Amino acid sequence: MPAPLRIALAGLGTVGGGVIRLIETNAALITRRAGRPIVISAVSARDRTKDRGVDISRYAWEDDMTAMAARDDIDAVVELVGGADGPALTLARNAISHGKSLVTANKAMIAHHGLELAELSEKARVALKFEAAVAGGIPVIKGLREGAAANAIERLYGILNGTCNFILSTMEDTGRDFADVLAEAQAKGFAEADPSFDVEGTDAAHKLAILSAIAFGTRIDFASVDTAGIGRISAADIAQADTLGYVIRLIGMAEVDSEGGVNRLFQRVQPHLVPFDHPLAHVDGATNAVVAEGNFSGRLLFQGAGAGDGPTASAVVADLIDIARGDLGGEAGAPFSIQVAEMEDMPPAESGHRRGRAYIRFTVADRPGVLAEITAAMRDAGVSIESLIQRGRAEEGGDVMVAMVTHEGPEAAVSEALRLLDGSPSLSDAPLVMQILGD
Amino acid sequence: MPAPLRIALAGLGTVGGGVIRLIETNAALITRRAGRPIVISAVSARDRTKDRGVDISRYAWEDDMTAMAARDDIDAVVELVGGADGPALTLARNAISHGKSLVTANKAMIAHHGLELAELSEKARVALKFEAAVAGGIPVIKGLREGAAANAIERLYGILNGTCNFILSTMEDTGRDFADVLAEAQAKGFAEADPSFDVEGTDAAHKLAILSAIAFGTRIDFASVDTAGIGRISAADIAQADTLGYVIRLIGMAEVDSEGGVNRLFQRVQPHLVPFDHPLAHVDGATNAVVAEGNFSGRLLFQGAGAGDGPTASAVVADLIDIARGDLGGEAGAPFSIQVAEMEDMPPAESGHRRGRAYIRFTVADRPGVLAEITAAMRDAGVSIESLIQRGRAEEGGDVMVAMVTHEGPEAAVSEALRLLDGSPSLSDAPLVMQILGD
Repeated sequence: MPAPLRIALAGLGTVGGGVIRLIETNAALITRRAGRPIVISAVSARDRTKDRGVDISRYAWEDDMTAMAARDDIDAVVELVGGADGPALTLARNAISHGKSLVTANKAMIAHHGLELAELSEKARVALKFEAAVAGGIPVIKGLREGAAANAIERLYGILNGTCNFILSTMEDTGRDFADVLAEAQAKGFAEADPSFDVEGTDAAHKLAILSAIAFGTRIDFASVDTAGIGRISAADIAQADTLGYVIRLIGMAEVDSEGGVNRLFQRVQPHLVPFDHPLAHVDGATNAVVAEGNFSGRLLFQGAGAGDGPTASAVVADLIDIARGDLGGEAGAPFSIQVAEMEDMPPAESGHRRGRAYIRFTVADRPGVLAEITAAMRDAGVSIESLIQRGRAEEGGDVMVAMVTHEGPEAAVSEALRLLDGSPSLSDAPLVMQILGD
Repeated sequence: MPAPLRIALAGLGTVGGGVIRLIETNAALITRRAGRPIVISAVSARDRTKDRGVDISRYAWEDDMTAMAARDDIDAVVELVGGADGPALTLARNAISHGKSLVTANKAMIAHHGLELAELSEKARVALKFEAAVAGGIPVIKGLREGAAANAIERLYGILNGTCNFILSTMEDTGRDFADVLAEAQAKGFAEADPSFDVEGTDAAHKLAILSAIAFGTRIDFASVDTAGIGRISAADIAQADTLGYVIRLIGMAEVDSEGGVNRLFQRVQPHLVPFDHPLAHVDGATNAVVAEGNFSGRLLFQGAGAGDGPTASAVVADLIDIARGDLGGEAGAPFSIQVAEMEDMPPAESGHRRGRAYIRFTVADRPGVLAEITAAMRDAGVSIESLIQRGRAEEGGDVMVAMVTHEGPEAAVSEALRLLDGSPSLSDAPLVMQILGD
């Protein structure tokens, strides 16, 4: 049998503990599948003494992560430290420059520095793998990079944040409001103490930017992802969507926009109304799902647990098995499917000329003329209204909700209508616009 | 740029035409992703002159497929001839023995001869790839072999035949009967003139046997797949299932049964009742979907088009891109994830001690005492009935339908109850048993 693949593990939090448990539990199986054992040779974390539920005493300990990357007895480094920059990035650069393959679950680092690391890995002819950085245990990086490799991807979209999906589907099931469900999710450990990274869409945007680069062969452009979170969605919105035949999901979506003969990259994370008969309407709880529409494959759907120590460890170790097998993704790597030098630097797309149907919710003062004002703005901006529902007010003089669904039309028209209404004393709150996911 | 990967294409039917169109349409993209061009160097089929909608005059023609496998200007052979034996198998053996990688969409050949071909390919150190043989364009072979490689797979199941799924979901949508919908499917080209291979479950069984081998590391055992088709499902069954909260789907399922300390391989293709809230309940039309439950990943779902020239070509060319990239799946191949010599020869499991809930439908004469006879048999066999519905007869003296759902219990008890009723003059037709898909 060939020599073992010797790995160093940096970061021993939840996922790090999961990786150790997986490698120990499934050791015999991994050896059969990889063709050789995968052994942990060294570990490093901030605190050596913390109880992690796994015995780390059998592994060499390094106080200095950077030193770990230089060890002669290491073939691959697993970075589970987290953070876009700082120690994680230093470790990643060092590992690759010392000729070690790098496996990471760090979506922020890949979204911000993935191209630099990929170029380093291509030069060093080592693997850079990050299956665990997107959608937890779902092999969607591999699915896009290899499984769908023969296709021009026409559209890519999905549910990329488990915390948001848990909150939205719980709101849907219980009729409770956002703040209430968020508090429960925090109590149960499904949401962070500071949930902004998840609920404002940043985490989903990191993942979308990584997937876009692989799907479309474009340079990662996290900064241009048009991002909105779920914090303004109310129980009333969810009830209204249900009446209309939709659920609400936070959708990350990317495609190449060729309007006007110039290719531009459209990337958006935004709550969408998803029709009941769409597969994503049935993705509940902390589950993630990604759809890739290929020009030959048609619609491919990958679904599974988007987070958690077990699923994330599954993805990390799958990457290690690829490396142990010698499947580094081609002669010179190409972690993003094509080599960095070949990736297109595509300008971001404007969303204005996109066509679609939208849900628009207004919170308005309950007095005569408000509906006339809103519908006049829609008419003047050329927005055609498919349905409109005004919900009865809860109490005398309170605000009322006006929700509408538009016919298909340019997004710019909806923006123009909202501009016309901007500053109107009739509106008690900024309108909430959500696109309706189309076929 | 490295030299092109030169392929020979044998079989120019629907899928062969799709592969040519894909390679021509996406040529630039494939070159960027594979790191080198993939070029068709030679083609072969039964009839050179047939109009295929693609221009084959630019490719060298071989009348003799076997000769094609020996050409010096070929790196990989794509076998799209079909059939478990005969020319396809001869070509496959020849290609590998001449040191060519082999890509095939031929599920029957892999289900029957996959181990022999894998051994040959492991010795020859060439790739043997068959993504297109299971679930069309869905990268489920790769998903299991690589994406889920870190996991012990606890259960594998899915919708593996698009024709059956089209028929069942159309029956569901329209209330029409099996024969009627089958005739429509045949007219539309969704079902073969002789549909038995699909509707009797054989095609799904081929695919299940291949997936089982990869998931569980067991030698392919197609002969032991317990297979039932969809021909006996009536519109009334579908209506009844709907009332109870289920849809009916033909499910292939496999798992390792460790009852009594001996590992046995359970493989079954059978119509199941699938609860509305299960992801597979929303898989409609000719779509396929595969669920793999890993001990760390949890439930992974892969879904997409299960057939058709575009999706199948997508899978074939993905395999070719892997080969062009040099990702042959490890030093010595291992097309089934582990090498053939390491695969377990696991005896088939008995289904009798499996526990579950079942739907049982009787067609009975409409006379006093029949229900008492059926329920007595259930009681005597220890089957606990959760719900029972007798549907009113259509006409005086006609047959009536009695449908029941059992509480969870051993499958052997249901078999025993049916044995007690066997030959009873009260039963106008053999009872139909379908398992209920559990969590």
